[in-house]
Amino acid sequence: MDNSSSPSETAGKPIICKAAVCRGPGDPLVIEEIEVAPPRAWEVRIKILCTALCHSDVTFWKLNKAPLSVFPRIFGHEAVGVVESVGENVEEVKSGDTVLPVFLPNCGECRDCKRKKGNACSEIDTVMHHVMPRDGSSRFKDRNGEVIHHFLFVSSFSEYTVVDVSVVVKISPQIPVDKACLLSCGVTTGVGSAWKVADVEEGSTVAIFGLGAVGLAVAEGARLRGVSKIIGVDVNPSKFEKGKIYGLTDFINPENCGEKRVSQVIKELTGDGADYCFECVGMASLVEEAFESTRVGGSTIVIGVDLHGTPLKLSCFDLLMGRSVKGSFFGGVKPKLDIPLLAQKYIDKELNLDGFVTHEVSFQDINKAFDYLMQGKSIRCIIWINP
Amino acid sequence: MDNSSSPSETAGKPIICKAAVCRGPGDPLVIEEIEVAPPRAWEVRIKILCTALCHSDVTFWKLNKAPLSVFPRIFGHEAVGVVESVGENVEEVKSGDTVLPVFLPNCGECRDCKRKKGNACSEIDTVMHHVMPRDGSSRFKDRNGEVIHHFLFVSSFSEYTVVDVSVVVKISPQIPVDKACLLSCGVTTGVGSAWKVADVEEGSTVAIFGLGAVGLAVAEGARLRGVSKIIGVDVNPSKFEKGKIYGLTDFINPENCGEKRVSQVIKELTGDGADYCFECVGMASLVEEAFESTRVGGSTIVIGVDLHGTPLKLSCFDLLMGRSVKGSFFGGVKPKLDIPLLAQKYIDKELNLDGFVTHEVSFQDINKAFDYLMQGKSIRCIIWINP
Repeated sequence: MDNSSSPSETAGKPIICKAAVCRGPGDPLVIEEIEVAPPRAWEVRIKILCTALCHSDVTFWKLNKAPLSVFPRIFGHEAVGVVESVGENVEEVKSGDTVLPVFLPNCGECRDCKRKKGNACSEIDTVMHHVMPRDGSSRFKDRNGEVIHHFLFVSSFSEYTVVDVSVVVKISPQIPVDKACLLSCGVTTGVGSAWKVADVEEGSTVAIFGLGAVGLAVAEGARLRGVSKIIGVDVNPSKFEKGKIYGLTDFINPENCGEKRVSQVIKELTGDGADYCFECVGMASLVEEAFESTRVGGSTIVIGVDLHGTPLKLSCFDLLMGRSVKGSFFGGVKPKLDIPLLAQKYIDKELNLDGFVTHEVSFQDINKAFDYLMQGKSIRCIIWINP
Repeated sequence: MDNSSSPSETAGKPIICKAAVCRGPGDPLVIEEIEVAPPRAWEVRIKILCTALCHSDVTFWKLNKAPLSVFPRIFGHEAVGVVESVGENVEEVKSGDTVLPVFLPNCGECRDCKRKKGNACSEIDTVMHHVMPRDGSSRFKDRNGEVIHHFLFVSSFSEYTVVDVSVVVKISPQIPVDKACLLSCGVTTGVGSAWKVADVEEGSTVAIFGLGAVGLAVAEGARLRGVSKIIGVDVNPSKFEKGKIYGLTDFINPENCGEKRVSQVIKELTGDGADYCFECVGMASLVEEAFESTRVGGSTIVIGVDLHGTPLKLSCFDLLMGRSVKGSFFGGVKPKLDIPLLAQKYIDKELNLDGFVTHEVSFQDINKAFDYLMQGKSIRCIIWINP
């Protein structure tokens, strides 16, 4: 694809470009030529500049259980791009705008989008995210005419993608693109979980289970709120050094706790338990341990996705004493409202995004990004699509 | 006891007066002469005017399992009285003040009392509530010199009681005493659960499991916030008529649901589930049903005390989509701060307390109050101690 083509040349026409297509669960991605249809009404076609690899990409890439496992597919959902063209009825953005496509719709009109609390848009069903949300069809075809599916409404492992206008967030072009893309999922989830879901306050104590990008972003959110203690829990000891730049004060490696449970160590470190515990791994048993680690009046925030279906078992009595358990979906943020604010905080040098990017690869080397993440080497690996 | 005695005559001396003493689990209360010691430092002796019977009294009255089952004991914890005398260091109230003794300490000085969120005072341990909290001893003796235990720091089924200053709430003497006492536990728990724990907002939908005094008070709190729907769930159909005065719009009798689960009926009534579900019964299975009844982004508030220890089983995935489960201990209120505000709302004719009182008995007939409550006849029965 000639990156210098102007919107006027491509608008309204299919674009032939490169995408990293995955043909089956766990299969390496293959860079192929695909055809990206023009945006229909309420849709936006975006030229992706760069994208990062998030754990959810890996989770769904491995998944071989219907109905969520759908192939062939273009993964990627943490990205930044420039609007190439827009379909009918789209007035919110125009060709040339810098935008983040995100996985969570925010129509702005439904009761939930207008409600002060929460962030689940009730206008658009988020389960069928392998197709366009309004008409249930795909905008991607391979060169044999076979349909390629979307992922989380974004599919950013492609030079061009088409997304619904409800998942497009316009942001300031001032923010470097390799930092901007982080706000499209992981960092926003973490910071939002600390600020909007938990609403941590100055002087409180925080424990974070799992120090990937989301866990570290929880720490960053907590650090900015002036909490007194941030305890990281991870089996990978290298995460402690990394976490220190986001304010981590203590580190627990569950493998070094001997006879003690992690909750006991947290209680010893905090006196009587943490005010806020964040589970960023996705295991019901770890949510239970996090719950055990909170003090009376404390909150456990569930961020990790447990796809095993294991039920969470809690003591009613412990809950009753004023504890709470809260699910955090995309950090409770309303994308169009909150992400531009986070971007501004980066521009204002408050929010630290720099440390999250540990690796960068070219589009051709996209499979290396998967290796780095699965080997626990990377926090975020930037994949340059249209550098 | 001569009720006309002035504080100067009794201050600093033991008071011989009448109390309803319970000698064993489930035993009828017997009005006996007891000796009430003078208040020690940080303590307040109160002449009880009237008290109401709350379900927690009945729960602990029946309980025959250590360590919570302690006898002989003076029950009662929903009361209003007048300060007779105060011990050293007590400056907050003085002889003649109208006060509510409450079961939840609020020292006002600890980190938790100063924290904006939550209401669990960390200065005073609430588990050992059968004795005075600071020195672990009792202020009650029977005429043979045997110690009689306290209950929930209050023990209002007595002409006089001694409580810690941290559980004393000074209120306006303007509010009729038979309404004031309701704010000492049940009504405050319900209204607080709606306002402070759930923070229900105008236009939202509410379902309440269990329409006792607490459940009806949740409805009253929700009504005052202008919610669009209040669904009551109870096996006692007479509760529907009662609930209407507190804004109940719909009623579900689980015994009349046929094949349908209650959660399904609630989903049909609300479209996609209630924004807020309150469990006021104390059964883990009912909390699970309440959780199932909430929409994405909704909250389940656990108010009922499940003493069976049955674990609560929840789906991590359903939580993750932005649902939450919150324990409500005394409605999340900070007693000294919030109860006077509720009393003012009654005086201002906003908060409806009148309908809660369904029965009244003299002190001698206190066992009748237990019968009324256990037979499902009463919401609140006022017991006149010093009318």
